[in-house]
Amino acid sequence: MSHTPLLDLIESPAALRALDKAQLPQLAAELRQFLLESVGQTGGHFASNLGAVELTVALHYVYNTPEDKLVWDVGHQSYPHKILTGRKKQMHTMRQYGGLAGFPKRSESAYDAFGVGHSSTSIGAALGMAVADKLAGKTNRSVAIIGDGAMTAGQAFEALNCAGDMDVDLLVILNDNEMSISPNVGALPKYLASNVVRDMHGLLSTIKAQSSKVLDKLPGAMEIAQKVEHKIKSLASEADHVKQSLSLFENFGFDYTGPVDGHNVVQLADVLKELRGKKGPQLLHVVTKKGNGYKLAENDPVKYHAVANLPKDDMPSENPPAPSPKPTYTQIFGRWLCDQAAADTRLVAITPAMREGSGLVEFEQKFPDRYFDVGIAEQHAVTFAGGLACEGAKPVVAIYSTFLQRAYDQLVHDVALQNLPVMFAVDRAGIVGADGPTHAGLYDLSFLRCIPNMVIAAPSDENECRLLLSTCYQIDAPSVVRYPRGSGCGAQVSDGLDTVAVGKGLIKRSGKQTAIIAFGSMVQPALKAAEALDATVADMRFVKPLDEALILELAQSHDYIVTTEENAEQGGAGSAVLELLAKHNIRKPVLLLGVADIVTEHGPADKLLDDLGLSAPAMQQRIAAWQQTCR
Amino acid sequence: MSHTPLLDLIESPAALRALDKAQLPQLAAELRQFLLESVGQTGGHFASNLGAVELTVALHYVYNTPEDKLVWDVGHQSYPHKILTGRKKQMHTMRQYGGLAGFPKRSESAYDAFGVGHSSTSIGAALGMAVADKLAGKTNRSVAIIGDGAMTAGQAFEALNCAGDMDVDLLVILNDNEMSISPNVGALPKYLASNVVRDMHGLLSTIKAQSSKVLDKLPGAMEIAQKVEHKIKSLASEADHVKQSLSLFENFGFDYTGPVDGHNVVQLADVLKELRGKKGPQLLHVVTKKGNGYKLAENDPVKYHAVANLPKDDMPSENPPAPSPKPTYTQIFGRWLCDQAAADTRLVAITPAMREGSGLVEFEQKFPDRYFDVGIAEQHAVTFAGGLACEGAKPVVAIYSTFLQRAYDQLVHDVALQNLPVMFAVDRAGIVGADGPTHAGLYDLSFLRCIPNMVIAAPSDENECRLLLSTCYQIDAPSVVRYPRGSGCGAQVSDGLDTVAVGKGLIKRSGKQTAIIAFGSMVQPALKAAEALDATVADMRFVKPLDEALILELAQSHDYIVTTEENAEQGGAGSAVLELLAKHNIRKPVLLLGVADIVTEHGPADKLLDDLGLSAPAMQQRIAAWQQTCR
Repeated sequence: MSHTPLLDLIESPAALRALDKAQLPQLAAELRQFLLESVGQTGGHFASNLGAVELTVALHYVYNTPEDKLVWDVGHQSYPHKILTGRKKQMHTMRQYGGLAGFPKRSESAYDAFGVGHSSTSIGAALGMAVADKLAGKTNRSVAIIGDGAMTAGQAFEALNCAGDMDVDLLVILNDNEMSISPNVGALPKYLASNVVRDMHGLLSTIKAQSSKVLDKLPGAMEIAQKVEHKIKSLASEADHVKQSLSLFENFGFDYTGPVDGHNVVQLADVLKELRGKKGPQLLHVVTKKGNGYKLAENDPVKYHAVANLPKDDMPSENPPAPSPKPTYTQIFGRWLCDQAAADTRLVAITPAMREGSGLVEFEQKFPDRYFDVGIAEQHAVTFAGGLACEGAKPVVAIYSTFLQRAYDQLVHDVALQNLPVMFAVDRAGIVGADGPTHAGLYDLSFLRCIPNMVIAAPSDENECRLLLSTCYQIDAPSVVRYPRGSGCGAQVSDGLDTVAVGKGLIKRSGKQTAIIAFGSMVQPALKAAEALDATVADMRFVKPLDEALILELAQSHDYIVTTEENAEQGGAGSAVLELLAKHNIRKPVLLLGVADIVTEHGPADKLLDDLGLSAPAMQQRIAAWQQTCR
Repeated sequence: MSHTPLLDLIESPAALRALDKAQLPQLAAELRQFLLESVGQTGGHFASNLGAVELTVALHYVYNTPEDKLVWDVGHQSYPHKILTGRKKQMHTMRQYGGLAGFPKRSESAYDAFGVGHSSTSIGAALGMAVADKLAGKTNRSVAIIGDGAMTAGQAFEALNCAGDMDVDLLVILNDNEMSISPNVGALPKYLASNVVRDMHGLLSTIKAQSSKVLDKLPGAMEIAQKVEHKIKSLASEADHVKQSLSLFENFGFDYTGPVDGHNVVQLADVLKELRGKKGPQLLHVVTKKGNGYKLAENDPVKYHAVANLPKDDMPSENPPAPSPKPTYTQIFGRWLCDQAAADTRLVAITPAMREGSGLVEFEQKFPDRYFDVGIAEQHAVTFAGGLACEGAKPVVAIYSTFLQRAYDQLVHDVALQNLPVMFAVDRAGIVGADGPTHAGLYDLSFLRCIPNMVIAAPSDENECRLLLSTCYQIDAPSVVRYPRGSGCGAQVSDGLDTVAVGKGLIKRSGKQTAIIAFGSMVQPALKAAEALDATVADMRFVKPLDEALILELAQSHDYIVTTEENAEQGGAGSAVLELLAKHNIRKPVLLLGVADIVTEHGPADKLLDDLGLSAPAMQQRIAAWQQTCR
């Protein structure tokens, strides 16, 4: 590791605030160096953090944290903040089991003012803090730091609109790197990028100044000059007036400052010091370069947004990590989507800013006219899909399970109640590993199963994933295919677009006494657990509609029923089985094996699933122990 | 009824389009008259519809509906549209059982391009239609008609941001009446109201024209004049440049037209005709007066937004309908809120634009500093509450069950995962009556029960509602009190702020053989049904945590277990009971009486509940019939 003498002294922001301002550039340089090394070792959101080094140093230098509240949007850029707030020595545990969380987390540090993970919450949360503090008569300040990508989400707009109308001291820092995770889309980023807007404030002042100079130097014709001067002044005044509506943010009632170079730490500290003293909602527009200071990340920030598990003790190198021999579910989806689109010109694909994460890179290249990245705007993604379906297109919405929570009402109101054939490809359903609880898709079966008209499929392996995608795509109703992060058991994936019967499961193993009714990703561990138990295992394929005949048959022919799913036990697929058995007055012992009613941890998915009793050995043990209690 | 000779000829928009443009004012006048009489008879959203008369006439006159798509936001203003699209003779059935829906509904008419009820979906849906039609090579057009209140929702912003960046022909009409349901809030409405913006387009043109006139008329000093002219031209050009960013909507890439008088039908038709031919995203800013033409509604549009069940065959009069002798749950909440706020200065209340509907009028008057109407912005409402809770305030979010769907991710991510003490007062939980399925709060128990840390209470009568509000308010964790629309059984409500034990239910009636485990609004019908059955009835009070001891005791001492709730059966409170019984291996016949897995209808709540088998007689019959099958 490099020598970082100044950084080593910063045990807390108080120590940082004791530095001379002239020392800040050195501290920032050391922090950047440390970050490169620590993130290089543990993986994480790389480029975002490099871009936020100077801003973070300046913020903790000027603001009296933790009494002043810093709310980091999404949290991808919070590593420098963690390093400066007493967690430098734990950075090597980042995103690891029992180690630091990859996002700010209230239970981890008093400096983490708000727990994040999903984007665009920071303005609303910081506004809430500012209002509460004002009501309590406190004088501390709240700051939201939000990227330009996150500004496209409706929630950020709602918060700006609300804050701009309030008499509250709030600073929103727009960290504008012209790049969210994927290059961001929509009219707003164009607006921010536009030179007109960036330069307009300065330009208008210059014109005002120059116009009076011109008149001073010209001899005679004073009458004309006076009239013209009046006219120019009037025009300039109009221009001033117009200037008020110039900035999008000023439209919302914020005072706008910027753009400011986000890598000039001394200037940032000066600007922040001034802003900390100002009343009312303030917006500071900071322009940064994502990945600043690390050549590889700068050139390809999409690829280096998250550095997943680079080899330990190695600096990130030009060689990306070797791809897994098994394709991920995301890749299975991406391939299927291209094949299905080639076969059906009606197919259109929609992503809320997750082109890479959702496996749409190839689709975009092959079918650019049918590819819609709507930005971080889940609500709009789903309603837009509803509109597309109304006119005969066949929309596929590629979305992560927890991000679908953002579009729940739209799924109900704009798709399901109208029974529109929109298909949702729900990725990251289940435990997600290092990203932790904000990204763990543990609720979708419960929040989807109660909605009328929905078809919900959960594939048990890669080939099943393709089959169920093809099947749900053909259904003339809303449908969901939910699959986990990463790869499955490595099943051979067929090439065709074959479909299976909707609402029919299949027996994967025939055994005795115990029937395991397994859903999706839990079919594979269930099969392993079934060996020692000699249990029957059914791959249900569909959570809704349930294969009622199959379940009733299994219930009649077995003494013990076990259900298992990678979803909350409350209201999930196991509950659906209980509801069915109750309806048919079948009274057998039933054990539900799902995710317990707790906030889960971050760490390797295998480890977390084992902790939750959902690995094959844990499942086997739990079933055996339960059967003892039933006797 | 008045004589409406022209309107009577309009069996469809085709007949409207055959009229001479000069006849449109008469048609609009007749339509307004008819509307006053028909809405006066059946109740409904009054002022909004009166404001949209001329716009509707002009739209159907210019656009080739139903091939061209009109998407009415929320749908509060769609009655003139229904009248002109072949449904005039059914208007007397509006919002009644088996009659016309109060909102556009795809299954009701080919002219209803998109089903609505919740706000701010129209731009996204119309954009989807426009994109699908473009991909299919069609030349028809799509129009979204949205009120200024609905523009505050993030979803509308997301859609504007997306559309502005697309090469698609879409017209968004901003129907600006400076009033959503409650007077709307936030910076955006202020922006719209600002004369600067309204007048700026004309002003800039005038300045440009005048500046050249001035120079033409002044003799000599041509050199100066030329220089100055150059300067002025340069300034004017700058002003033009600035003008590009002038309008908020132009920031998003829309061409802006307006403001236009929304009650001048001929002018509207002319403007629309021109806009229909234009390429790319267009925004038309129409200024209307909500309730135009009806004095009472004009003076008090909040009160007359929805006219609920005015006496049949009577015109609406100056006398409002007599208040029910029983207070509504909304009123119970409103009173409790004021009392609790008087006792605890930390209490703050938040509403997403539902001051009247959620019973906050008195609170706002008494505690203006602690009252936050954030506009139609459910996502922000919840995250804002999370921020408030972080700093020691005690936020109460007053929200309808189906609107909470809009803030589901915020509830999970910004409140529950962080275990912040935000209390949700969830109104309209269950069947809502005339508003129909878009407003029926049938899913909240299912989508909330799976989330860790949540406490969920469901009061069985008015006094229980107050007790459970007081109780949940004191819990240091996220909590929900969910109660139905309208009034309960008329229980006497105590004055204090007494609390009850969290997660404890109580026996309301002791019987034999059959135990009815009842939740919330179903306790009262269960008690009636229990008489003939001589069943035991428990009022569970809490859906989460369940009173496990009580349920186990009832299960041991009874032969038949019945659960009942005004929520989807899938994953609801009954499922929670099944999960508990399975966990304890208690195998008894269990009947779940909840809302079936269908899209419900609109009509009187009593009638709908009876159809769903949830009235006392239906419940009694179902239990008895089920017990026969168990034997």
